Amino acid sequence: METAIALQPGAANSLQAWHRMVAERDLSRLPELLHPQAVFRSPMAHTPYEGAATVNLILNTVLQVFEDFRYHRELASAQGADVVLEFSARVGDRELKGIDMIRFDDEGKIVEFEVMIRPMSGLQALGDEMKRRLAAYRGK
Amino acid sequence: METAIALQPGAANSLQAWHRMVAERDLSRLPELLHPQAVFRSPMAHTPYEGAATVNLILNTVLQVFEDFRYHRELASAQGADVVLEFSARVGDRELKGIDMIRFDDEGKIVEFEVMIRPMSGLQALGDEMKRRLAAYRGK
Repeated sequence: METAIALQPGAANSLQAWHRMVAERDLSRLPELLHPQAVFRSPMAHTPYEGAATVNLILNTVLQVFEDFRYHRELASAQGADVVLEFSARVGDRELKGIDMIRFDDEGKIVEFEVMIRPMSGLQALGDEMKRRLAAYRGK
Repeated sequence: METAIALQPGAANSLQAWHRMVAERDLSRLPELLHPQAVFRSPMAHTPYEGAATVNLILNTVLQVFEDFRYHRELASAQGADVVLEFSARVGDRELKGIDMIRFDDEGKIVEFEVMIRPMSGLQALGDEMKRRLAAYRGK
């Protein structure tokens, strides 16, 4: 494994927990990591999604949509409260790259989770699939 | 100014030079920072663009397209050879967020420059404008 990035203790613990959840494809304990007012900034939409319940639903859905999901480089801010996690994944036959840009508060709670995706074809495939799944959820 | 991220000496020098160029909106000395085999990974296209001359042309064009361009957070890998620079900008009436993910070699030359943009509307506006300008360039 590569040298670890330097993070504040709370952020380091949460990041480790996040990686374990993603590796096990089980985000059932994600709510423990989310600040009640956590914000999700979507690669598709301009307007942020607010609140832990919404962020939890979105991240669970995204993780189900991604196939062959793998993290690569990790980067941290000098203050150790922000990380960027580079990833690659597939949606159907579309390969994509992306980043999770996560901001933690002093206790290590996730206060902001921003995702960016390239290229355009991968972003469109993800957007279409997310829309389909979240519409199904709303219809329940 | 925020605490600086820890980078390898060559990368730190190049990043400083890059910030100066962008602040002055003058990339005329960018070729000095680019490795001859530098690769640009576009937010729009899957296939990378290769070679310093091509990367130079693309970055010059992007910088002209962006209005109200501003850098925000900076993040680095533990090895100090990779940075992520968070930015915001506008293309016409579309606001966007993005990241430059840059990899430097041991001498501080840029070997990889990857850009991601959100949301979709901002990426589309950038893509349309880039296509228009690069087509004009090819037509010369």
